Amino acid sequence: MRFLSLPIRFRSLKRSPFHGLSRLSSLASANPPPMDATEASLRKAFAEKQAAADSQSAAVRSLKAAGAPKPEIAAAVDALKALKLEVDAVARDLKNAVVGNGDSSVNREAFRQVVVNTLERRLFYIPSFKIYRGVAGLYDYGPPGCAVKANVLAFWRQHFVLEENMLEVDCPCVTPEVVLKASGHVDKFTDLMVKDEKTGQCYRADHLLKDFCKEKIEKDLTLPSEKVAELKHILAVLDDLSADELGAKIKEYGIAAPDTKNPLSDPYPFNLMFQTSIGPTGLVQGYLRPETAQGIFVNFKDLYYYNGNKLPFAAAQIGQAFRNEISPRQGLLRVREFTLAEIEHFVDPDDKSHPKYSEVADLQFLMFPRELQLSGQAAKKMCLGEAVSKGIVNNQTLGYFIGRVYLFLTSLGIDKERLRFRQHLPNEMAHYAADCWDAEIECSYGWIECVGIADRSAYDLRAHSEKSSVPLVAHERFAEPREVEELVITPVKKELGLEFKGNQKNVVEALEAMKEAEAMSLKATLEANGEAEFYVCTLEKSVTLKSKMVSISKETKKEHQRVFTPSVIEPSFGIGRIIYCLFEHSFYTRPSKDGDEQLNVFRFPPLVAPIKCTVFPLVQNHQYEAVAKQISRSLTLKGISSKIDVTGTSIGKRYARTDELGVPFAITVDSTNSVTIRERDSKEQVRVDLDKVTSVVEELSNGQSTWEDVKWKYPTPSHTNVGD
Amino acid sequence: MRFLSLPIRFRSLKRSPFHGLSRLSSLASANPPPMDATEASLRKAFAEKQAAADSQSAAVRSLKAAGAPKPEIAAAVDALKALKLEVDAVARDLKNAVVGNGDSSVNREAFRQVVVNTLERRLFYIPSFKIYRGVAGLYDYGPPGCAVKANVLAFWRQHFVLEENMLEVDCPCVTPEVVLKASGHVDKFTDLMVKDEKTGQCYRADHLLKDFCKEKIEKDLTLPSEKVAELKHILAVLDDLSADELGAKIKEYGIAAPDTKNPLSDPYPFNLMFQTSIGPTGLVQGYLRPETAQGIFVNFKDLYYYNGNKLPFAAAQIGQAFRNEISPRQGLLRVREFTLAEIEHFVDPDDKSHPKYSEVADLQFLMFPRELQLSGQAAKKMCLGEAVSKGIVNNQTLGYFIGRVYLFLTSLGIDKERLRFRQHLPNEMAHYAADCWDAEIECSYGWIECVGIADRSAYDLRAHSEKSSVPLVAHERFAEPREVEELVITPVKKELGLEFKGNQKNVVEALEAMKEAEAMSLKATLEANGEAEFYVCTLEKSVTLKSKMVSISKETKKEHQRVFTPSVIEPSFGIGRIIYCLFEHSFYTRPSKDGDEQLNVFRFPPLVAPIKCTVFPLVQNHQYEAVAKQISRSLTLKGISSKIDVTGTSIGKRYARTDELGVPFAITVDSTNSVTIRERDSKEQVRVDLDKVTSVVEELSNGQSTWEDVKWKYPTPSHTNVGD
Repeated sequence: MRFLSLPIRFRSLKRSPFHGLSRLSSLASANPPPMDATEASLRKAFAEKQAAADSQSAAVRSLKAAGAPKPEIAAAVDALKALKLEVDAVARDLKNAVVGNGDSSVNREAFRQVVVNTLERRLFYIPSFKIYRGVAGLYDYGPPGCAVKANVLAFWRQHFVLEENMLEVDCPCVTPEVVLKASGHVDKFTDLMVKDEKTGQCYRADHLLKDFCKEKIEKDLTLPSEKVAELKHILAVLDDLSADELGAKIKEYGIAAPDTKNPLSDPYPFNLMFQTSIGPTGLVQGYLRPETAQGIFVNFKDLYYYNGNKLPFAAAQIGQAFRNEISPRQGLLRVREFTLAEIEHFVDPDDKSHPKYSEVADLQFLMFPRELQLSGQAAKKMCLGEAVSKGIVNNQTLGYFIGRVYLFLTSLGIDKERLRFRQHLPNEMAHYAADCWDAEIECSYGWIECVGIADRSAYDLRAHSEKSSVPLVAHERFAEPREVEELVITPVKKELGLEFKGNQKNVVEALEAMKEAEAMSLKATLEANGEAEFYVCTLEKSVTLKSKMVSISKETKKEHQRVFTPSVIEPSFGIGRIIYCLFEHSFYTRPSKDGDEQLNVFRFPPLVAPIKCTVFPLVQNHQYEAVAKQISRSLTLKGISSKIDVTGTSIGKRYARTDELGVPFAITVDSTNSVTIRERDSKEQVRVDLDKVTSVVEELSNGQSTWEDVKWKYPTPSHTNVGD
Repeated sequence: MRFLSLPIRFRSLKRSPFHGLSRLSSLASANPPPMDATEASLRKAFAEKQAAADSQSAAVRSLKAAGAPKPEIAAAVDALKALKLEVDAVARDLKNAVVGNGDSSVNREAFRQVVVNTLERRLFYIPSFKIYRGVAGLYDYGPPGCAVKANVLAFWRQHFVLEENMLEVDCPCVTPEVVLKASGHVDKFTDLMVKDEKTGQCYRADHLLKDFCKEKIEKDLTLPSEKVAELKHILAVLDDLSADELGAKIKEYGIAAPDTKNPLSDPYPFNLMFQTSIGPTGLVQGYLRPETAQGIFVNFKDLYYYNGNKLPFAAAQIGQAFRNEISPRQGLLRVREFTLAEIEHFVDPDDKSHPKYSEVADLQFLMFPRELQLSGQAAKKMCLGEAVSKGIVNNQTLGYFIGRVYLFLTSLGIDKERLRFRQHLPNEMAHYAADCWDAEIECSYGWIECVGIADRSAYDLRAHSEKSSVPLVAHERFAEPREVEELVITPVKKELGLEFKGNQKNVVEALEAMKEAEAMSLKATLEANGEAEFYVCTLEKSVTLKSKMVSISKETKKEHQRVFTPSVIEPSFGIGRIIYCLFEHSFYTRPSKDGDEQLNVFRFPPLVAPIKCTVFPLVQNHQYEAVAKQISRSLTLKGISSKIDVTGTSIGKRYARTDELGVPFAITVDSTNSVTIRERDSKEQVRVDLDKVTSVVEELSNGQSTWEDVKWKYPTPSHTNVGD
């Protein structure tokens, strides 16, 4: 079961020289992560008990060999048995300590299996090209999944693009090499891969090492604690290992190809972009974009102009992105093609305040700043405004977007208690990034990064400015011209020529290349001594300058504007991951009316529900059917999706069917002048006149009213319809 | 200026053996298209006048050579001059006849240039990767273009998916080879290409031949009329020419590479799909989908099940498609990546009626059936119901979709008079297609195919059934079991074994393989003669059978259901082409208030307008600005896009700016308790109280009320705001 892939841009940088510093020292680190105290004492207890059992076992053997009396042998055997029971008991405790609560992990897998089966059976998604046995990492959204996705994207547009007046663009997936060369993807968007040397089968090197370490820790209870610490340290720094380091560990541990046990090649980088060729000549190299952001950066100049040459402004893009994963795992969460929704908010690096910041400053939610992570503490509930004012979050604009992302995700139905904002550790961030937070959602796979919110400073615009030679900059016109001091160095060429002849050019260049401090010091020396020694690097020697050979001064100049490269703050949403987590958070089961089976329900809020309302005639009856069709028709005209079910199936079965699709409201037609509306989760019903029913459902679906409002306004039916 | 590419599926078949029959005879056709009568007589007149001028010129020369008297020579020269004037006059008329109304063609180009400049300046679209000098055939939608596109797609979802309860799916762009092998694209989705033999530059072979023929006809007035007829015939059958035929013509006419005049290679097929490789091994070949339809076909089984195993039902998909054009031309209309919206309506081939057909049967619009095209007539206004009942349109369902497409396009703002439905000629259709109509929209490039509506019979499902071995079929349960006759052949193996020994198996297989007619004739012979000669192909000889060796009978059997492959009716929308035509149809200019310049306006209906409303404070004033912001905020909460303009620019300039973006309504704040609303095209204004203004604009934007309604309900302001 796989879905959408990691949408986070820094991933391109994780295995790249961009932050090589943190990586160099990773394996040499003197501070392996501390082992859990319980686990350490259990491992010690296990080793002691095992040793005691071994020596008792030896004692039994020697008693037998020596022909000791039977009762003596029997007593020794009993002691051995008791010791073995103790070994088993400690082993059980140790295993639990190592893999966490064993039961909960089993439960999580079982829960996932139920959710995923339901999703697949009801066609929320379908493995792509299933009749041809599919392709790993490619999934279709079937009808209800496609509707959920459309609703999520429509809300994203409302919540971000419309509310913030963002400039939305729509750029192609096919991208020429030059763009992705400038962004760094051509050179650095790689994963390290190893090949089965006989079959050519490919694996992600870090996955193999990770699997080996985890299995060893979990299964080999006799592992000495230094070894355990070593393996745990490897798991902690896995993302930072170089090809050589990974290769060395794979060799050291004798890791072989999992499917064949054949030897493996050394790790080497594999670029994750799908390659293609643009045009018929085969000479123009292109790629499928690995993210949508670059389409915005290359349009910065036009967008800035469109915005009246004013900062800040944000551009946004929703679209497909592609990553040719080596071996997609983690089901629906890591896929080869996925929908990203990205925002690039361009801002003056000297002023990262945000006019609407106060609207989110009072929000409180789980945050996981760097210090809590490094000191081994858990995420904790914090007030966003406090996190910003204390400098935990770098600036107001970054804080504003964190708050807006929180509101976005929880409005969709993501559980507040299973959503946290985790700050990147220094070694996770690109060197140019000012700060970076991931919205992580907890699901059966653990905490999953679903939105990345990064202050990327001026990196991207500078990269494209350099490569394209088109300045991607902003201008700040001063209200009044400002005076600025400027260093003026004027070599007196005539004097220099007389003195240095053919070397004159080198001396002039060296003089003009001086930085302020050096120039002012030279000026001082010349003024004091009338001459000065001056090192000319292109001549590889010092020359003696006289006062008359150069004039150095500081002049004030009027400037009318400031030209600078804007910073960019980038919230980047992995839409498929959010939707998958939403599926898990929305899913629950409840017993059927007669209690003999568990029924599945998705508690989607009306906003995201794939179908807003079902319409049932209570019994198969021409009149009721006509009313049902009329209601359905009016809902359609208002843009509310509905589903009519005129099968003769029992109302209970019909409710169960639609609960499993997450349909929030059901209208049952049991009269020609009024109907009942039933709410999915409470199973409560109200009675509404026929001429009101569409507007009631419309308001519920659009969020203009809640079920509580409706219950307050309309009567409960005297007889509720059977089925719940 | 290029945009979205030809979305029509039959294109894949146009240069393929699927309908090779029509192609074989194309160049040998005995009926070249008739030349326009005027043109023919003008060519004749031109040749005569030119000949007369030539002979007069010779006469002048011989008079001079013979030393004739001056007055005689002068008279001859005058006559020659007069003849030359006549030649020029005829040439002018002929040129006009050949290229149509020369002025109108120039006007069309000029009109396009104004529209395209406006679109590009206001960022409706942007050549992709412009700072890197772009890539031919790739375009971005900038902010207003992106909003128009989102509105068109939202309306498409409402008009088709929601109203018809279609099953929308969302499949990946990356597609494995096996799927596109089955669909025929791997083998047949090609254009014929020639290469400059020295530089390797590529050209579409048909484009070069077309350009040559058109230029020759237009520029060479002395061309004999047989030659003109030949070139015109080539233009008419261009799409049907084989590689050999194209190559032969290119050689015959001595056509060279346009840029270098180098010789050209022979034409060869170039597959238009972008290739890529899936996964890290490089062994799994994939393509970017050239259409979205295949994703639906491969999911047929699941979708049929989702629909309760009932026909008819339709599935739909909106998504990117890709075609690696050889040399994209025709600006925004032929691009390498584009958005398609496709519907596959699956229907029982024995019952193509449609329950909602009556809702469209009375529509009247321009239709261009086959017969009108073949007899050289123009498209004419017809009643859709009549076209269906007369059999001009093959069936009700096809007719229903033609009607729905008409309503869709005209609701967007496509001009009814410049929209026609053109039926495919027999040689344009794949052999399996039952009928096919294109919605063609007239723009400055001529009549452009924007939607294809084809009855493709069972072709696609059969192709995937065969390739995947998964039966993609539907079942019709009979209300009562039906009796069917079945042929039963029972070889008596004992007797056959005795007679034929080792050959028994071959004889048994041959008997069992008999078709009904053969079996019944064998039965008759055996009954008449007691024995019969029987040819066993695997033995390559006849054997003699006796009555006792085989029993042949027809038995009646009860069948409970019918199993069949559904037909598919496919409306396929090239969204980018529709949008481009919409831009042209919506554009007009009008003089500014003082008449010194022409102002551009897009008359988008509110449904598609990128921004629904602008809000201006009349003067820069803190109070008015606060009101403007409040209005804008309420509109945003209702999901209505608005733009606030607090610059001090004159109201006239502000109107002009937003007219050019096609914003239909402008609110001017000139008081704190009421405002004026101005309509873009009429420039009329009404005065509305502050507490009403958002709901008035909301209803106008959602199409719940019209400007006429609003004018009727609210007063005209005593002083209209200056600026118009």
